[in-house]
Amino acid sequence: MTIAAPFLLLNRTLLPVDEAGITPADRGFLLGDGLFETMRVSNGEVPLLDRHYQRLRHGCALLRLPPPALEDMRHDCHTLLEACTLHEGSIRFTLSRGPGPRGLTPPQTPQPTQLLTASPPPRTTLAPVRVRISTHRRDALSPLCQVKSLSVLPAILARLEAQEQGADDALMLNHHGSVTEASAATFLAHDGTQLITPPLHDGVLPGISRARLLEAGHCNERSLTNDALATLPAAWLVTALSLTPIIAIDDHPLPVWENETERLRQFLYGLS
Amino acid sequence: MTIAAPFLLLNRTLLPVDEAGITPADRGFLLGDGLFETMRVSNGEVPLLDRHYQRLRHGCALLRLPPPALEDMRHDCHTLLEACTLHEGSIRFTLSRGPGPRGLTPPQTPQPTQLLTASPPPRTTLAPVRVRISTHRRDALSPLCQVKSLSVLPAILARLEAQEQGADDALMLNHHGSVTEASAATFLAHDGTQLITPPLHDGVLPGISRARLLEAGHCNERSLTNDALATLPAAWLVTALSLTPIIAIDDHPLPVWENETERLRQFLYGLS
Repeated sequence: MTIAAPFLLLNRTLLPVDEAGITPADRGFLLGDGLFETMRVSNGEVPLLDRHYQRLRHGCALLRLPPPALEDMRHDCHTLLEACTLHEGSIRFTLSRGPGPRGLTPPQTPQPTQLLTASPPPRTTLAPVRVRISTHRRDALSPLCQVKSLSVLPAILARLEAQEQGADDALMLNHHGSVTEASAATFLAHDGTQLITPPLHDGVLPGISRARLLEAGHCNERSLTNDALATLPAAWLVTALSLTPIIAIDDHPLPVWENETERLRQFLYGLS
Repeated sequence: MTIAAPFLLLNRTLLPVDEAGITPADRGFLLGDGLFETMRVSNGEVPLLDRHYQRLRHGCALLRLPPPALEDMRHDCHTLLEACTLHEGSIRFTLSRGPGPRGLTPPQTPQPTQLLTASPPPRTTLAPVRVRISTHRRDALSPLCQVKSLSVLPAILARLEAQEQGADDALMLNHHGSVTEASAATFLAHDGTQLITPPLHDGVLPGISRARLLEAGHCNERSLTNDALATLPAAWLVTALSLTPIIAIDDHPLPVWENETERLRQFLYGLS
């Protein structure tokens, strides 16, 4: 078992991780039919639960899934964090369409599966990363770009390719050659004047940290072509959990801007 | 529980379906990270196992997954069909990357999960279907077009859209406007002279029935534009399990060619 915390919640029931089992008829397992959110835990709370919930609701509308209630999610997060005595780290909420008969057609009245798992923070500080431009493209026209779905294999293939080339992660373009994001992180860059990140219509996930940086005026949306990457003075990968400097895009080295990195981390994740 | 047969094989162990559980850390459930094959069962055998196995191996190479052994799969199919006393129907082999730690990066030494389930044939003969041109496109450049992955959500969204529009299934185009396939079936059409089906490079799955029809000279590959659909005299959806006449593409009605349908069914599925 590789879930680090000792307990989880399966369909809102607290269980030791080793005693929980997903039915083999679950469409999450059989078809990648569902959604998830990975949320930062700080001081035993999930400070951005409301934002993650709004994105989850948007995904549920697209997938025609009944969304959970926000208050139930909040209650369940507290239950799990208390049971695991976890104060810092992350919590993942997985919502699948639940069991169904053979084939793609969803059951008329789905009985979604809810899984809530917790993880401690990584043991070491995240090292700066090398990224490579992927041969795998993101399809900006797919509505699935906008939601965190369980059908993650396109991004996994991009990650595998990058790692086989000696990099840590992939940087994916769309079919017009514009930069989108890494396999599971927002791409943030400095263009010499300001911090920028690609706009949603280029095919990027509406990341929670991304939205907070934009709303606070810390960065602006701008499309970036592959060619423009070689002239960037600095760049980062950003998720709900971490901000990581990029030290190389393909063979183009980038310096780590320590002060800017620290300033952004303070804004996004506080002093914890 | 919605798996119709009373037993399944989980990691090569025969279990009553109600007693089987997938670990919540399984990357099949969390990330759609895996592959599957749905195979026809006839006279208690899986006559096209070797062809399905070859496609599965191709998928394993793309996903960097260790493939199962063909002889093990053959043995397991027999074990399950005997336990279920199933002579006709279908069997689904699901191969996920198994459990892993948090995040996208696969474990260095994956311990894949194997699930084998059986289903009886549908109780009624499949009725002819209405299809609608989908707003969801297939990305012909994605290598995932070529394999049956567990990340099926794009096709599920297309199916849902079609059904909400009163049709039975979606017909998906690629980004150049060429016809590819339905949400889970090969598109086969008559152009007035011959049977045709779109070529693989248009973004279609290399279907087993599709390959058999091509190899036997029953049809030829040809790209089809959206516009050309309105002039087709007849069309079908084809899977490993069934061939179904299409009676409407959007608002364009099509006649059912009973004799041709019967001839193709005989070729593909025999007299059973």
